[in-house]
Amino acid sequence: MGSISVLLVAKVIPYLEQELNKRYNLLRIWDFPQKSQLLTQHSASIRAVVGNASAGADAEFIDALPKLEIVSSYSVGVDMIDLNKCKEKGIRVTNTPDVLTDDVADLAIGLILALLRRICESDRYVRNGNWKSGDYKLTTKFSGKTVGIIGLGRIGTAIAKRAEGFNCPISYFSRTQKQESKYKYYPSVVELASNSDILVVACPLTEETHHIINRE
Amino acid sequence: MGSISVLLVAKVIPYLEQELNKRYNLLRIWDFPQKSQLLTQHSASIRAVVGNASAGADAEFIDALPKLEIVSSYSVGVDMIDLNKCKEKGIRVTNTPDVLTDDVADLAIGLILALLRRICESDRYVRNGNWKSGDYKLTTKFSGKTVGIIGLGRIGTAIAKRAEGFNCPISYFSRTQKQESKYKYYPSVVELASNSDILVVACPLTEETHHIINRE
Repeated sequence: MGSISVLLVAKVIPYLEQELNKRYNLLRIWDFPQKSQLLTQHSASIRAVVGNASAGADAEFIDALPKLEIVSSYSVGVDMIDLNKCKEKGIRVTNTPDVLTDDVADLAIGLILALLRRICESDRYVRNGNWKSGDYKLTTKFSGKTVGIIGLGRIGTAIAKRAEGFNCPISYFSRTQKQESKYKYYPSVVELASNSDILVVACPLTEETHHIINRE
Repeated sequence: MGSISVLLVAKVIPYLEQELNKRYNLLRIWDFPQKSQLLTQHSASIRAVVGNASAGADAEFIDALPKLEIVSSYSVGVDMIDLNKCKEKGIRVTNTPDVLTDDVADLAIGLILALLRRICESDRYVRNGNWKSGDYKLTTKFSGKTVGIIGLGRIGTAIAKRAEGFNCPISYFSRTQKQESKYKYYPSVVELASNSDILVVACPLTEETHHIINRE
């Protein structure tokens, strides 16, 4: 296949892997139990590294690939890519922010509605034929309920926008108050939670946010 | 058991029936196979009639109840109440518009999301333990899809407002174009359908709208 070698350091969906394979000499890091072997054989031909939020390229690895032109993250996160090193060597870094924002926000609202209106339970109720013996019990409405969002980034904002369509008062918690936001800010997660009917977690998972939702 | 007689001409939920029963001498029309018997015994004491979209009070019946002060419809529809006769005799008529608008609109969006994202199927997939053998297949997003609404009344408008939060272009069909609406109007259901990814029926069921969705 092509003379350009592309190194996968993380798994991508089969379709993408196939397409890359058609166009390039595709290498998979997991085929090389020893990194030294990979570097000996291919360091001179690898021009692209494809990773994600959990696998990228550190400074040492970047230095070992003299022909490297691009490090691509197949997700929003670029935490595993040494950005300073890339900048220094003029290596492009790409990621995929916003691609999934709408989908995640859609699904958040979908799951809230499914939970409040017990859509999955009702679905089973109908499929099991229980509707013949009576109506499904009443559920509760989403519209007008107070929604608290932890993390008002791209996804949190997209969720808030959708919830507004349901006339839900929105409030949020984040590390710092967003001056440009019209939503009510709470400086603590606990305060936000106690003032919300529905609590949405839309922050990145970091050491700081790990277990942000707990018994407290 | 008060001295005021209230006549139910349609079934209401048990809780409401109980509450009415606590406060008034509650009569149920189905306990009187002969209307004449009901009238003979109670026409002098009935001061309220409670019905819904399918059962109300016609002119003859209203005339037969000299003490009637109010006809209440336990739904939006007042089709079965002779409004002219009530006006003529100073009888109040009440109904319950808007009470369920938000709920119906919420559920419409909830079902659209559940369908597109296959939430019920995914729920079964997880509950059956299939997640252990692999990810659920990809589904499709709601955001940005064109939504066509048949009937831009209270409920249609509430659905449109929610869909806007998902950045969905909205168009609609109704008997007449609504000048105040910013949504795109199609003068035919077929045209609307062929220009929509998602079609929502939000019109009353009448002879005119019966089978408005068909193979054509």
